Amino acid sequence: MTTIRLWTDEEVSANPRVKAVFDDIRLTRNSEFINNFWRALANDPDALERTWAAIRQIMIAPGALDPLTKELIYIAVSAAHSCSYCVHSHTAAARAKGMTPAQHAELVAIIALASQTNALATALQIPVDPEFEAGTIPR
Amino acid sequence: MTTIRLWTDEEVSANPRVKAVFDDIRLTRNSEFINNFWRALANDPDALERTWAAIRQIMIAPGALDPLTKELIYIAVSAAHSCSYCVHSHTAAARAKGMTPAQHAELVAIIALASQTNALATALQIPVDPEFEAGTIPR
Amino acid sequence: MTTIRLWTDEEVSANPRVKAVFDDIRLTRNSEFINNFWRALANDPDALERTWAAIRQIMIAPGALDPLTKELIYIAVSAAHSCSYCVHSHTAAARAKGMTPAQHAELVAIIALASQTNALATALQIPVDPEFEAGTIPR
Amino acid sequence: MTTIRLWTDEEVSANPRVKAVFDDIRLTRNSEFINNFWRALANDPDALERTWAAIRQIMIAPGALDPLTKELIYIAVSAAHSCSYCVHSHTAAARAKGMTPAQHAELVAIIALASQTNALATALQIPVDPEFEAGTIPR
Amino acid sequence: MTTIRLWTDEEVSANPRVKAVFDDIRLTRNSEFINNFWRALANDPDALERTWAAIRQIMIAPGALDPLTKELIYIAVSAAHSCSYCVHSHTAAARAKGMTPAQHAELVAIIALASQTNALATALQIPVDPEFEAGTIPR
Amino acid sequence: MTTIRLWTDEEVSANPRVKAVFDDIRLTRNSEFINNFWRALANDPDALERTWAAIRQIMIAPGALDPLTKELIYIAVSAAHSCSYCVHSHTAAARAKGMTPAQHAELVAIIALASQTNALATALQIPVDPEFEAGTIPR
Repeated sequence: MTTIRLWTDEEVSANPRVKAVFDDIRLTRNSEFINNFWRALANDPDALERTWAAIRQIMIAPGALDPLTKELIYIAVSAAHSCSYCVHSHTAAARAKGMTPAQHAELVAIIALASQTNALATALQIPVDPEFEAGTIPR
Repeated sequence: MTTIRLWTDEEVSANPRVKAVFDDIRLTRNSEFINNFWRALANDPDALERTWAAIRQIMIAPGALDPLTKELIYIAVSAAHSCSYCVHSHTAAARAKGMTPAQHAELVAIIALASQTNALATALQIPVDPEFEAGTIPR
Repeated sequence: MTTIRLWTDEEVSANPRVKAVFDDIRLTRNSEFINNFWRALANDPDALERTWAAIRQIMIAPGALDPLTKELIYIAVSAAHSCSYCVHSHTAAARAKGMTPAQHAELVAIIALASQTNALATALQIPVDPEFEAGTIPR
Repeated sequence: MTTIRLWTDEEVSANPRVKAVFDDIRLTRNSEFINNFWRALANDPDALERTWAAIRQIMIAPGALDPLTKELIYIAVSAAHSCSYCVHSHTAAARAKGMTPAQHAELVAIIALASQTNALATALQIPVDPEFEAGTIPR
Repeated sequence: MTTIRLWTDEEVSANPRVKAVFDDIRLTRNSEFINNFWRALANDPDALERTWAAIRQIMIAPGALDPLTKELIYIAVSAAHSCSYCVHSHTAAARAKGMTPAQHAELVAIIALASQTNALATALQIPVDPEFEAGTIPR
Repeated sequence: MTTIRLWTDEEVSANPRVKAVFDDIRLTRNSEFINNFWRALANDPDALERTWAAIRQIMIAPGALDPLTKELIYIAVSAAHSCSYCVHSHTAAARAKGMTPAQHAELVAIIALASQTNALATALQIPVDPEFEAGTIPR
């Protein structure tokens, strides 16, 4: 159940702005499959173009972090926000980019550990150490 | 302002269980500095030992992910949970492990992008694609 | 799957306190339909009365904001809390109050944008400008 | 305390990409004041340009919702995410756009009410009514 | 720094509706001290009366849970929402109601443990066991 | 739909480390039923052992809080984190430990009340009273 209509391929073909983004997604990913996220965003071509452009710039263009590391970070944020759709889609994406079961297990362990120590720091309202300003302290 | 007392080095020295953990933290990190998180946890030696053991096992022991990647994931979770203490402490830790300004910028960009698409997926209640079950779809 | 029993109309009719609230909901909304939220709250008549009274006072009584604006704010909070039930029910309510597809698209875009800049401010731990105290700064 | 350096006006002037965005912010808002959010984002010109472009497109360009309504929605999301910086900056922005004390009080009451019913729906795991699919049910 | 003015005792005395609530808070708590939460809510007498009435009904009136247990639950929710003000005020309240250091340590340990297993269940998207419907399974 | 395989009893029997934990869960709970949470964790024996050890130490070993109070706190955290699996499993666990319908109603009312006042404190950015440092103020 969704709060918005998901666009079919026929509807996409009839709208040049939406079609251009879908074509670029297919070309970039080298796959015919377009997931529901984009079929929902198609209702707002501005949002569709803006979101795909940001993903191209941040996730796909070469950068300082490798593609798999980026997906692991994405999964971590999605889990912390309790976004079921996003955990599913980005776990699938990470596997497609080579995430091994051991890496997945370690990712999930870190997410759980961070959630635990986040809760400790918040429940105890621990004051930030002035030493962290300098950014030179190991953990 | 905290909701719990932070232990001084004198108090730590007087409690063998707490002292053993603090000694191991100093030895492992090769630094005399102990941050407030541990001085707060010292009030509950069980929690102190359990938390440090988990950090040793997950963050410090060699694994499938490198130490810097682990810190980036930790920062992502901490930011999503709005944990000020944790964002500060783990950003400092990531810098100590070699995080460059370009990597930091990219990390923050991914956190913001994921927060944005998480919000889109949740606000539109987009149904999970059955294809994600198989875990073979690129994004 | 729920953690509490949903009351049927027969059960409601047999309990005067619950029936009074359900009657007022039907009268106020001019509709026979009562959604599951109220059928769940019926298990606790105090909570049922308190919650309906708050909704009457805040959402239904004339105020400084118009009814549709109130629903848009409600959807924004519900999406940020990842409350699937609430996103569905209040998106339906907003449509019943005249929300157009263009307004819905804009609402969702603002929710996503705010989630993104919230994440940036938190991940970077940006200090609050003293100018905001005065409440006179445009964005 | 922040995890990133805030750019001074001198540094901004020395970087053409950053200066162009700051100039446009000043021109668009008709104010010399630039808040810390932008001085932090200046560290990543891509993020700075992308974020300002999204704010121009969503918050400033004429659309289906009026500027004050947009700010109220922004505050609601920021409060739900517990983003102190964002609550402060957007409450100031809403006041600059004419938010009255009565409107502010009503906004805060709706945020609190939604948080309360979100919690009820989640704690009771209430199933979504199939009637909401059609989007025609009043509340 | 707050987004709203905190009322002084002089201002409270000049407003009969606000004064009536403040008088009742002082009488109920048997203390002259009124914390900032109420001084902020005073700006909206409807919200002030509604919130105090709910606290009287849920937290103060005799019920199925004892007063200290209620405060522990309140702290748990406040920590999970990363509400600094609320963690401080309700930890103080719990201590005033007799919370021992051992009980506090155990509370914080449960909050951290639940945050950890919540994260595991969400990151792994574990399906709910049908057996939980019946509510008869021990953990 | 899950992002990880759930282990069958046959698979568990073939792995001594996993089998040892499952045997201890069955013995401790005096029940043959093992819920999906553990069948998912079985993929990472380290996480399985660490999580079960923490639950034994915090939730099952005698402590300063009684077992039912511990479960109520667990439910409160799980609801605040919007963890559907956890709300279901711990509500079932609380019922198994004797939670009455009146206690459940009161728990849910406190969760909703705290969510409401958390939102008020955050939306208004109310400053923490210095009196709370001492921990002696009743609410």
